[in-house]
Order: sequence, then structure tokens, then C-alpha cells
Amino acid sequence: MPRSTAPSSRTRVCRKPERAAYDAETINAIVDAAVICSVAFQIDGGVHAIPTIHWRDGGYLYVHGAKASRMLKALTESEVCITVALADGLVLARSAMHHSMNYRSVVIYGQFESVNQPAEKERALRALIEGLYPGRWDTLRPINDKELNATSVLRIPLAEASSKARDSGVKDDDDDLDWPVWAGVIPFNTATGTPRRENDSVGGTVPSTRFTL
Amino acid sequence: MPRSTAPSSRTRVCRKPERAAYDAETINAIVDAAVICSVAFQIDGGVHAIPTIHWRDGGYLYVHGAKASRMLKALTESEVCITVALADGLVLARSAMHHSMNYRSVVIYGQFESVNQPAEKERALRALIEGLYPGRWDTLRPINDKELNATSVLRIPLAEASSKARDSGVKDDDDDLDWPVWAGVIPFNTATGTPRRENDSVGGTVPSTRFTL
Repeated sequence: MPRSTAPSSRTRVCRKPERAAYDAETINAIVDAAVICSVAFQIDGGVHAIPTIHWRDGGYLYVHGAKASRMLKALTESEVCITVALADGLVLARSAMHHSMNYRSVVIYGQFESVNQPAEKERALRALIEGLYPGRWDTLRPINDKELNATSVLRIPLAEASSKARDSGVKDDDDDLDWPVWAGVIPFNTATGTPRRENDSVGGTVPSTRFTL
Repeated sequence: MPRSTAPSSRTRVCRKPERAAYDAETINAIVDAAVICSVAFQIDGGVHAIPTIHWRDGGYLYVHGAKASRMLKALTESEVCITVALADGLVLARSAMHHSMNYRSVVIYGQFESVNQPAEKERALRALIEGLYPGRWDTLRPINDKELNATSVLRIPLAEASSKARDSGVKDDDDDLDWPVWAGVIPFNTATGTPRRENDSVGGTVPSTRFTL
């Protein structure tokens, strides 16, 4: 049974609260099912947002980028609001009003902190690679100090977060049930396709990913 | 050839500008390929973001929701920053540093306006349904005034927008090309799966969607 208590007023789901859950297991699963999040932040009172790759290690969501990035710098100087969203299916009703979508989403509030210690930074980047491709990190050309230095890694606790999801059929008005139009759910399926080996890649076998079916 | 000039300083892509495009054709195609965007906005100086269904009609991106939604009201009272992002593939290099992702993304700045005229609102909702399921609107139980009244529709021009995309193979350091690990691209494929007709759905045939392959 998902935890039903929001960790803060700004994470409380007001519209359709029956779709909300606040427990770590539910939130982590949605964060892990996606590779891209959107990070909203402020600079000089203006609102900005950037899509970026994210990953999770324990109770933190991580992002990374070039150390020279002004955006990444701004992220540690502002409260942020992160969204993760996955479209799972189209819901087709007899009336326009009851058309909907099945989806999973997470909203996270908080502030990023910079991961500065080289060993911690390497551990975080290992978690990124291992999370996508279990066993791959140790097969790669080892990361070096120059690369570690050029990369910024930020993390934010998944403490102030909420999830919202819809995973059900069609809810039509009773009076509309006989309307002669197809009603149902058309799911979206996302899976990895045929891997394309780089022409000059000389070794190894195709790694599986956490998205491989 | 994509237009290479940003419409404003805040839409100019600074990191990896060779991945940027600012022309309507490129931006519209990415907006149309996604069903969920993230809308970042401000309330009382705080930053918020919500994932929501979007659609496009001409030069505008539309969102909708319950008229009673405080969030939707806030959206028209604040500058917003919208992101659309699609993960297209995982890029696996010989070094951790050159791992990457193929993706398409759009960032839009501006302010929403409310679509208030019932006829305009109905036209916008028709565009949502017809955009997903061509020909479906006229087969549905007709929308009524109560439903139109209960629904808020907002739109924002796609004028101040930028796109960024990566669609290429692996860029490894020359010294690493002989490293004996598989390098290449593992694509993500998203397609509609087997439709699930609602048990009490009595009529019609499964509509195709703009995502049906």
C-alpha cells in the first residue's frame, strides 16, 4: 500500500489525489524507469528548465555535465523542481471529455549539492554506467583525473517528492456506454531495438541494458 | 538546413551549439513526437513544474485541465519555461566519458494565454483528439457546454523556442579505438502495443494513432 502522506505541502497532489503515492519504492521505480528528467530552476528571478539525463543511487537523484556549464552552476544556487514523466498509454473514451492517458510521473523539490570529492564523483559516474549497463564499468578504458575534473556531478535527495500515476481503463459516463465508437486503451511500448555496432568497434559483445526486454 | 539563429538570448544553446536548431519545422516535429511536456513556472517567487499532456495547433502549444486547477491558473500569471524531451538511444563508448544519449528536445519560453471563447476552446480540443486519432472527433458523443465550461485550455506561441538533438554514433578518443569493449548505439523504439478494448465497448474499430507504426 503506497504511503499516502505528502512530505510537504508543495508536494501534495491536489488534483486526483487517488493517483498519488509518496513512498520511496514507488518514486524510485518511476525515476529508474526513465533516463531523462526536466530540471526547473531560477536565475535572477526568471524561470528556466532543462532536460537532462538523470540516474539514481540510493536516496539521491544525480545529474552531470561539463564543469564549464553555467546551467549546472545555477542549479546549485537555486531551489529546483524536477519532473520525470513516462507516457504509458492512450485512453480512448466515447466522449472527448473522458479521453485520458496512462502515465507515471514524479515531482521532486529541493536543492542540488555538488559532488566534489574525486572518489565520490567516480563512484557516482560508476553508478550511472552500471545502472544502465550492469558490469560495464570495469570493462571500459579507465576514467582519468582530467575527465573527472572536467565533469560536474550534482545530487539531490529524493526526500521531498511525490508520484502520480494512472494505470486503468476507460471511465465513461453511464449514459455514453452504448455510444458506437471503440473505447479502450492503446498502450505505448518502449524497448531497445537492434544495436548498431560502431564500424571501428573491435571487441566485446553487445551489453544488455536495464531497458532490454 | 535548420535555422541557426536563436530568437532570444535565453533560448540560445551554449553547450554543443552544433546540436541546436531554431526553425519551426524542426521544433514542431519534436513537439508532435511527444505527448507529455514539463511546464516550469513560478508562484510567489518559488519554482514549480508539472508534467502534462500537450498538443500543437499551428504555431501554438496547448495544454488543458480542470477549470478548478490552481496550477492552470498560475500558469497564465507567470512566465513559463516548457521542455519536451525524447530519449532515442543509448550511446556506448570505450570510455565512460564518451557515453552519451541520442535525443530530441525543445525548450519554449513565454506566457500562456487562456482560450476562453467556447468555439475556440472546442476547436482546440478537437485538434487534441484529431491530432492523436485522425477522424475520431466526429464519431464521439458530442461535447456539451458543461464539459466545455469545466475545461480550461491554455496556449503559448512556439515563437521563443529552441531545439537540441543528438543523432549520431560514438565519438571516442583516437587512443581508445582499439579498446576491446563493444561500442555502438542501442536505440529506443517506442510504438503502440496491442489495443485493449474496454469490456463494455460495443462499437467501432480500433482507431490508428499518430504513433501507430
